Amino acid sequence: MAHSAYNLNLTSGQVDLSHGGGGRAMAQLIDALFIKHFDNDLLKRRNDQAVFQVPAGRLAISTDGHVISPLFFPGGDIGALAVHGTLNDVAMSGARPLYLAAGFILEEGLALADLDRIVASMAAAAKAAGTPVVTGDTKVVERGKGDGVFITTTGVGIVPDGVDIAGDRAEPGCAVLVSGSIGDHGVAIMAGRENLQFGTSIVSDSAALHGLVADMVAAAPTRIRCLRDPTRGGLATALNELAEQSGVGIVVDENRIPIKAQVRAACEILGLDPLYVANEGKLVCICEADAAETLLNTMHNHPLGRDASIIGTVVADQHHFVQMTTGFGGRRIVDWPAGEQLPRIC
Amino acid sequence: MAHSAYNLNLTSGQVDLSHGGGGRAMAQLIDALFIKHFDNDLLKRRNDQAVFQVPAGRLAISTDGHVISPLFFPGGDIGALAVHGTLNDVAMSGARPLYLAAGFILEEGLALADLDRIVASMAAAAKAAGTPVVTGDTKVVERGKGDGVFITTTGVGIVPDGVDIAGDRAEPGCAVLVSGSIGDHGVAIMAGRENLQFGTSIVSDSAALHGLVADMVAAAPTRIRCLRDPTRGGLATALNELAEQSGVGIVVDENRIPIKAQVRAACEILGLDPLYVANEGKLVCICEADAAETLLNTMHNHPLGRDASIIGTVVADQHHFVQMTTGFGGRRIVDWPAGEQLPRIC
Repeated sequence: MAHSAYNLNLTSGQVDLSHGGGGRAMAQLIDALFIKHFDNDLLKRRNDQAVFQVPAGRLAISTDGHVISPLFFPGGDIGALAVHGTLNDVAMSGARPLYLAAGFILEEGLALADLDRIVASMAAAAKAAGTPVVTGDTKVVERGKGDGVFITTTGVGIVPDGVDIAGDRAEPGCAVLVSGSIGDHGVAIMAGRENLQFGTSIVSDSAALHGLVADMVAAAPTRIRCLRDPTRGGLATALNELAEQSGVGIVVDENRIPIKAQVRAACEILGLDPLYVANEGKLVCICEADAAETLLNTMHNHPLGRDASIIGTVVADQHHFVQMTTGFGGRRIVDWPAGEQLPRIC
Repeated sequence: MAHSAYNLNLTSGQVDLSHGGGGRAMAQLIDALFIKHFDNDLLKRRNDQAVFQVPAGRLAISTDGHVISPLFFPGGDIGALAVHGTLNDVAMSGARPLYLAAGFILEEGLALADLDRIVASMAAAAKAAGTPVVTGDTKVVERGKGDGVFITTTGVGIVPDGVDIAGDRAEPGCAVLVSGSIGDHGVAIMAGRENLQFGTSIVSDSAALHGLVADMVAAAPTRIRCLRDPTRGGLATALNELAEQSGVGIVVDENRIPIKAQVRAACEILGLDPLYVANEGKLVCICEADAAETLLNTMHNHPLGRDASIIGTVVADQHHFVQMTTGFGGRRIVDWPAGEQLPRIC
């Protein structure tokens, strides 16, 4: 190798500007870190793009920047999150994800050991999901112009024939389901930041949902109308988006929304409403009413849908409100979040 | 609209953390800025992914982060650059680019007027290239944790049947061409940063090269072996990469490498070697020798290839050296760049 003279010190070295310069130092970083971990033939060809065969049909593409702070958190890290976040956005069209691309923006001074750990975690998540990172890019910015590492991932996938899932397809009468307990990710991050001890550990739910989605699509290929992962802004925001896009109202039942006791307790301490707290391994599904039980059973049979619940119904509403029937029998409007209670949660 | 109450002040407003929060402020930013400028039906559906039809065949995907400083420079801005940079990487496989995805990482405090101008420029570049931005993502980081705006774009395209262009396909005897004068982009940026006045204005060559590539592919579909855009690290780095990937040597003739007189003069003042200075609208082509004249004529007939030149030859060399015959008749090795002379040039 022409650049074997430059050895990357993955134990005590740091990212410097030359790692983004296109020269030997960058080639070394790519070889010794990215290609080592991601380890696939497309990436190994070292082209500025990856070329692969696709069948004729509908392709889904999604991109997501990840700027979470801290980089390592209970239940995950920015690397695994960058895989899960984008795969989930691809899967929310009903698509089977195929490949990932990754763009790294590194801050000068980042410990190479941290980057190594992040990329290893990212590679493990990509491998577990069966979606290799086949192309990428690395840039370095000066100290104080970034924050360790930002990762923007893009995923492509194939939408099965006959599947038509989109945020504007909800209609009055449809059922609303959620795949599990809400608020885990945001609370895990906030607890980490605030250095809170809750006696019991809350971990992020960061997970790739495309396997669950594939089972759901197989069970009711034409009856699923909308899928959305309630990340930033939480369940409340996802429901408001879907109501807005479809031009409908949604009514949910507070008693049916799964929230872990320790998440609820932590939210009280932190002054958060769990409905607005981010999730990274959950989905909202809106389906035709007569498919709801089938889908609920399918979800219950998948490890990531064990706590799935039918939480409400789509209604006609010219205001496109999301309303919640409370535990006390009343109804309140679940509004869009106004400000930002949890910056850099993903 | 449920979020019409929030008005974005594009004249004197600034990005704040709520614009990345997933709530009303973010929805407003997406509506009033991104959807307004990018203006296409896929984006307007406001899903977290875009779904489109593709023919069976080979898909090319490339991703590129853009962190250039300053955001606005002679001949372009980060918005147009983020379109050109990624389209070019897709096109260097011989592919016809179809669609773009864009991930924005905004710094709190960025003037919305600047963002508006950048997104407008990006949309104009995407429209001119016929490659709409169909999906995207926006994140906001706190003041001092970013630098205005970083844009990571991802492009997908279709590789025509029979075309096989990659960095590892150069063979001894092949010809080496460059599509035009080198060093313009890097010198324009550096001159802007250093506030230098050169009497004559040097502007970035930032441009989308897929039209030029399409003409070249049509002229010699199976004879083009490698294409690469010499961005970071310049022509010297691109040639070294290709030599390394293909396991060959390359010999170029200094007299045949087009460099504008004012770029050469500026490089002398700035202490730069133009061979290592970034380009954003040029390509290196390695082709079978008997196709070189045909391709050169094709390039000369395209506005972005008017100054194209056959600059050298691929040779057998176990060291994979790039060598240059100098104007004085000698030969010197054109090595990989060691450090980083122009940080954040793209």
